Amino acid sequence: MRILHTADWHLGRILHGVHLTDDQAHVLEQLVALAREFRPDLVVIAGDVYDRAVPPQEAVALLDEVLTRLCGELRLPVVLTAGNHDSPERLAFGARLLAGQRLHVVGGIGPEPRPLRFEDRHGAVEVWALPFLDPLRVRHALDDEAVRDQPQALAAVLARVRAARDPARRSVLVAHAAVLGCETSESERPLAIGGAETVPASLLAGFDYVALGHLHRPQGVDGAAIRYAGSLLKYSFSEIGHEKSVTLVEMDGAGACRMEAVALAPRRDLRRIEGTLAELERGAAGDPRRDDYVVARLLDPGPVLDAMGRLRRVYPNVLHIERPILDAPAGEGLAASAPAGRLGDEALFAAFFEQVTGAPLDEAGRRLLAEVLEALERRRRGEEDAA
Amino acid sequence: MRILHTADWHLGRILHGVHLTDDQAHVLEQLVALAREFRPDLVVIAGDVYDRAVPPQEAVALLDEVLTRLCGELRLPVVLTAGNHDSPERLAFGARLLAGQRLHVVGGIGPEPRPLRFEDRHGAVEVWALPFLDPLRVRHALDDEAVRDQPQALAAVLARVRAARDPARRSVLVAHAAVLGCETSESERPLAIGGAETVPASLLAGFDYVALGHLHRPQGVDGAAIRYAGSLLKYSFSEIGHEKSVTLVEMDGAGACRMEAVALAPRRDLRRIEGTLAELERGAAGDPRRDDYVVARLLDPGPVLDAMGRLRRVYPNVLHIERPILDAPAGEGLAASAPAGRLGDEALFAAFFEQVTGAPLDEAGRRLLAEVLEALERRRRGEEDAA
Repeated sequence: MRILHTADWHLGRILHGVHLTDDQAHVLEQLVALAREFRPDLVVIAGDVYDRAVPPQEAVALLDEVLTRLCGELRLPVVLTAGNHDSPERLAFGARLLAGQRLHVVGGIGPEPRPLRFEDRHGAVEVWALPFLDPLRVRHALDDEAVRDQPQALAAVLARVRAARDPARRSVLVAHAAVLGCETSESERPLAIGGAETVPASLLAGFDYVALGHLHRPQGVDGAAIRYAGSLLKYSFSEIGHEKSVTLVEMDGAGACRMEAVALAPRRDLRRIEGTLAELERGAAGDPRRDDYVVARLLDPGPVLDAMGRLRRVYPNVLHIERPILDAPAGEGLAASAPAGRLGDEALFAAFFEQVTGAPLDEAGRRLLAEVLEALERRRRGEEDAA
Repeated sequence: MRILHTADWHLGRILHGVHLTDDQAHVLEQLVALAREFRPDLVVIAGDVYDRAVPPQEAVALLDEVLTRLCGELRLPVVLTAGNHDSPERLAFGARLLAGQRLHVVGGIGPEPRPLRFEDRHGAVEVWALPFLDPLRVRHALDDEAVRDQPQALAAVLARVRAARDPARRSVLVAHAAVLGCETSESERPLAIGGAETVPASLLAGFDYVALGHLHRPQGVDGAAIRYAGSLLKYSFSEIGHEKSVTLVEMDGAGACRMEAVALAPRRDLRRIEGTLAELERGAAGDPRRDDYVVARLLDPGPVLDAMGRLRRVYPNVLHIERPILDAPAGEGLAASAPAGRLGDEALFAAFFEQVTGAPLDEAGRRLLAEVLEALERRRRGEEDAA
């Protein structure tokens, strides 16, 4: 059985004010091409297909387009589960009709979990497709008062899955959860506020492949066929170091799996550039990917006027500027280090300058400051005379 | 060809604070039973299936349920168009896949209108299913700058439909529009704000049956097979006199249509009751439909304390109280009829009383008023002494 495993598309995502729909369409084009080439027996989208419960219209149109191509044109079975960002009810609209077109949408769960069944030349594979399991909904669906948090919800549902499954058959588990020890990113919404959230990988044992969603870095659990496909794109600055991918799984007749991550090439990468503003401006000329989404780490020691405006002229999609100099440890604040008594404007500014930059105000700086203060004073007097 | 024609379900509608989902499910149950019995070749839902662009989850779940039963269980073809209340993009999610399951959702239009084709034993019938035609969208889709209002949009699209249709085939037009001379209700959102909105029936000529949505009273155009199915329920007080229904159409091999309205029995009717509060309270005992949604027209001449609270005890779903006495023509306001100069409290109240009730304050009323004024005066003095 060949499985194309993906997750966390977050269609409708806005990153620092930028709507990412075009970027998402770009990599989904690659995903569809990959599906055409790889001819999987099954495509799994393990939750968070939308970024929010009521996604914008363009996100709805894009998902419609991609699913129509996968299920309609390529005639591939697709299993799509609701993640913690999706609305189970909205996502599941038309689910029973769409199942007739190979699109299996799983929004919520019922008291008796039931597998989907797919065939390859070795026989049938049971797919247990679980959406994100909200403890309150699971408590209600299973009528089990003991379910109080997310790990308990997953454990309770998996206990029923284990009781119901056919041990003679190969099996795939689809889940949207946080596994202990795996690496998180800033764009994942916590599954629980102030409560238990992670589950041990051992809870997921006993399936031939576990297709996970939720964590945005593509990653596996060592020594096990348990894997996060990762998100479609970098959805936060904490993901700058990631290489986003989809996972291709080849499962043999005995259930043994070979997994391969196939990288997705974004329309615009999200990356960090570093240097003084002048260096970055000079370097841009030789940068073939000036359209990328850029976080600029400005190393200028002093103040920089209109840094965003100047950077935008060379990197039109700069999203954010970091000034490490302003993040310097502020152990001793200005107030603490200032001499007792009231300082004159000049001394006060010099102390502030040294505090922020770590170096004393030099002679040229002092002259410039004197000029500015004098100009301000002249203007103030002029205004008084005019009044 | 047998057609079951319905429209304006407005799932998710809230009427005076009451969520109507259970009421809608109740009549949709009847609609499904009717479809099971009538075995139409086609079910038409002519727009405004939802009450708003982003409908509540229960509305999504109810539509999913009904469409699954019609298209899945009963295997009936369904044509569902977007009305002015629906979001074309959201409604059309999965449309191409769902078409494979007999559910034809039409959200928007393209430059070249295309018919759906259905068969009966006499041959094929072309169904031209048009959603609500927003002028801006139509101007863009047809690339026709002349389209400035809703009637022009419909005329422009119909011109292309007429050019494309096969005159040898029987045809059905589905549209969501306001036809001149038909009766409107208060729950229909205007199709245009301050602009032209109605179209003459002659614009719709030349089709064997025209299945309309938008107006909430079931009604036809005299001498023509052009008909509004009307809404599923009474969605405003102005519809109290309506009998809501679905329309069954029998089209013969020559395209001649016989139309029949089949009434829907609401879970709770919306109706107006009239009398003094005491009369209504007494009458309730013998009223077999006390659970109905009720507008109470209170005829008491004087003030009535806690009328809503008292009515709720006998009519638990009273929505609104009308006081015709307070609507009396106020041609000469109090100020105009009051004698010049300042009146004492007693004379002022008597004038007000007569103004509102049309009768002078009688002796018992004057005594009561005097007691109240005295008590108020005593309290005021007590408070002054205490201060």
